[in-house]
Amino acid sequence: MPKSRPRNAFYAQSGGVTAVINASACGVIETARKHKNKIAKVYAGRHGIVGALYEDLIDTTKESASAIRALRHTPSGAFGSARYKLKKYDDNPAEYERLIEVFKAHDIGYFFFNGGGDSADTCWKVSQLAEKMGYPIQAVHVPKTVDNDLPITDCCPGFGSVAKYVAVSIREAGFDVASMAKTSTKVFIMEVMGRHAGWIAAAGGLAAEKEGDSPHIILFPEVQLDEEKFLARVKFCVEKYGYCTIVVSEGIKNADGKFLADAGLRDAFGHAQLGGVAPVIAQMVKSKLNYKYHWAVADYLQRAARHIASKTDVDQAYAMGKAAVDLAIKGHNAVMPTIKRVSDKPYKWQVSMAPLEKVANVEKMLPRDYITADGFHITAKARKYLAPLIKGEDYPPYKDGLPQYVVLKNAPVRKKLTTDFKL
Amino acid sequence: MPKSRPRNAFYAQSGGVTAVINASACGVIETARKHKNKIAKVYAGRHGIVGALYEDLIDTTKESASAIRALRHTPSGAFGSARYKLKKYDDNPAEYERLIEVFKAHDIGYFFFNGGGDSADTCWKVSQLAEKMGYPIQAVHVPKTVDNDLPITDCCPGFGSVAKYVAVSIREAGFDVASMAKTSTKVFIMEVMGRHAGWIAAAGGLAAEKEGDSPHIILFPEVQLDEEKFLARVKFCVEKYGYCTIVVSEGIKNADGKFLADAGLRDAFGHAQLGGVAPVIAQMVKSKLNYKYHWAVADYLQRAARHIASKTDVDQAYAMGKAAVDLAIKGHNAVMPTIKRVSDKPYKWQVSMAPLEKVANVEKMLPRDYITADGFHITAKARKYLAPLIKGEDYPPYKDGLPQYVVLKNAPVRKKLTTDFKL
Repeated sequence: MPKSRPRNAFYAQSGGVTAVINASACGVIETARKHKNKIAKVYAGRHGIVGALYEDLIDTTKESASAIRALRHTPSGAFGSARYKLKKYDDNPAEYERLIEVFKAHDIGYFFFNGGGDSADTCWKVSQLAEKMGYPIQAVHVPKTVDNDLPITDCCPGFGSVAKYVAVSIREAGFDVASMAKTSTKVFIMEVMGRHAGWIAAAGGLAAEKEGDSPHIILFPEVQLDEEKFLARVKFCVEKYGYCTIVVSEGIKNADGKFLADAGLRDAFGHAQLGGVAPVIAQMVKSKLNYKYHWAVADYLQRAARHIASKTDVDQAYAMGKAAVDLAIKGHNAVMPTIKRVSDKPYKWQVSMAPLEKVANVEKMLPRDYITADGFHITAKARKYLAPLIKGEDYPPYKDGLPQYVVLKNAPVRKKLTTDFKL
Repeated sequence: MPKSRPRNAFYAQSGGVTAVINASACGVIETARKHKNKIAKVYAGRHGIVGALYEDLIDTTKESASAIRALRHTPSGAFGSARYKLKKYDDNPAEYERLIEVFKAHDIGYFFFNGGGDSADTCWKVSQLAEKMGYPIQAVHVPKTVDNDLPITDCCPGFGSVAKYVAVSIREAGFDVASMAKTSTKVFIMEVMGRHAGWIAAAGGLAAEKEGDSPHIILFPEVQLDEEKFLARVKFCVEKYGYCTIVVSEGIKNADGKFLADAGLRDAFGHAQLGGVAPVIAQMVKSKLNYKYHWAVADYLQRAARHIASKTDVDQAYAMGKAAVDLAIKGHNAVMPTIKRVSDKPYKWQVSMAPLEKVANVEKMLPRDYITADGFHITAKARKYLAPLIKGEDYPPYKDGLPQYVVLKNAPVRKKLTTDFKL
């Protein structure tokens, strides 16, 4: 471990962005700036890891303290993110050789990678460079994913805010439909993210605090859709409450195990129409029950909605960024800071740590006992877990009615290599 | 005008609800409570005018002052709204006779109707009852519509909040797409309301404060979609900015003058799929330009989003409710309070008044000079008009991470009639 002289750090954002990933960036950079004896400069990858391969680095020292502070309330990835997964070393050693070439040229001694499961795998691979290729580097993963599917950590930064967005939105839409149902829309369907796990859909359930509250039904990817049972439940709700509100995960599957979103719509030419399970469910309700319906697809709005971010989530995202730097400075490699729940009521959490080897490529699924026996809602156990994650508001500053999000200068670091790289 | 003894008031919500229609209800009820020498009790129609026809009245005096105050921050229609338009008197005199029967039984001397263009027409018809049928009543319309299409008034309560939601959402999604576009989604499409007029779509344009900001393209119902020109514009944006974000009104039409939303999708059985113009646009982009796309349909979320309501809008909604009562007490009939813009910078407005006869059934369209010459964005003139309407935040109270919206007791008024009525 280099103790004598400060080295530079590389920070990159990876995978789908969130409302709070920049809060983690803020935590990394602000903390690094306090330890100049260890970390000289933080360079960010323009478009994530791709920026490292292209030697397209951003010099974060060119950003003012207030610009970095503003990252805390700015959604999306301020340096650009990427969906790009490093191959296995044996399948593409050229990628790793290139990384080392670039890192060496810019004296990168710290690698902070901010992403989900795939990214943890990339980070783990980089952490092995020291041993495998004799290049001294410490790699620390900063957890981030709206999918909430990283293992070991109690929750993932990014999830709490999308959870809050979904719960707030279905509550509001539920109030709307309740007031119109007598003469108009009786069934409302809101599609949310979560292709593999129902964490986000489950969060919608928080809005239902007592019998009859929205949402009345949640459709999880974990529960195969039983059309008959589902329609019977819709009918029951309309007859009992006057209307029915539904949160549906984009990942739900039909009896054949196929994604409903893929099985459904075609354009006028008969081509399969990608995405959109809400209209498929709406059509089902319309054709079998003939209720008037409306549907919404939140898509990116849900994960970008910094305006309604969870304060808990923002705090945790920042804490993970800060902890990553603290861990690196203490000499750790191949680790990820985690959130450890200390108590539910009052909610208390602290920062802990996990070895990356146990994080990479492991998906944390929604436990079956978080879903009610009938498959249509969340249990008290789920509620206990989810509730604290949406707690607190953390509004961004506004000007003329619009949130003021920062756009960084993103000044490039002068290239030192004459070699090119092609992905 | 009855000056000697107080009479009761009837208040009803009509048409699609908004984030702030309850703020108008709050204004009506709080103001009426201050004038008990004129207005004895406010009865609300359960499910709007339908409640009057059914003699299904709600006694608002049973609600506490704090519950009524909470209406100011609660979206949707607290008493239930209805999509129901009274026929012309000559076509269905029975409806009017029934109204008078119910009003007489409950000593209704004031009729406050909270709605849009169709509702203004109903309110006007009621205002003529005194003359036509010898029943003394004063009818005052309280403007409300997310569509912003009522004439005379500078804007309509409900619009400012949906406008803010749309502008905030496309800004946030734009930041998201910008950070992902290098290796993922390049085109994002967000569908918003506005079947006949592009006011809501136009509001999305406020998020674009300088060259390159989101949204890059707005598709208005006022501009027939020229597919070739549109796709060329998308391509231009992707090449210049790296991505392209689009706000599309549900009401856009193709070259044949048909709604794109109707012309587009079919289910697996070939049945036309109602609603959803965003996926139609997405398919167009995919098949002709082969860009990776994502799309969102905000639907009810946009008009129910009290969590991001415009303070200007909330204040105006309340002011319209208050003014309606003030006008009635002063002896006015067949009128609607309006918002009069006094200055743009700083934005100043005051309450004014319009005769209902000039309001009913007149739609205020988006002026052509609010749309740029190429048809894809808003002009400086539009911006000057729209900007003040989204100004200010007015957050609802939260508990455990969720907004606390009030559900009223909605205690029924004891029926006095033995007769029934069928719609």
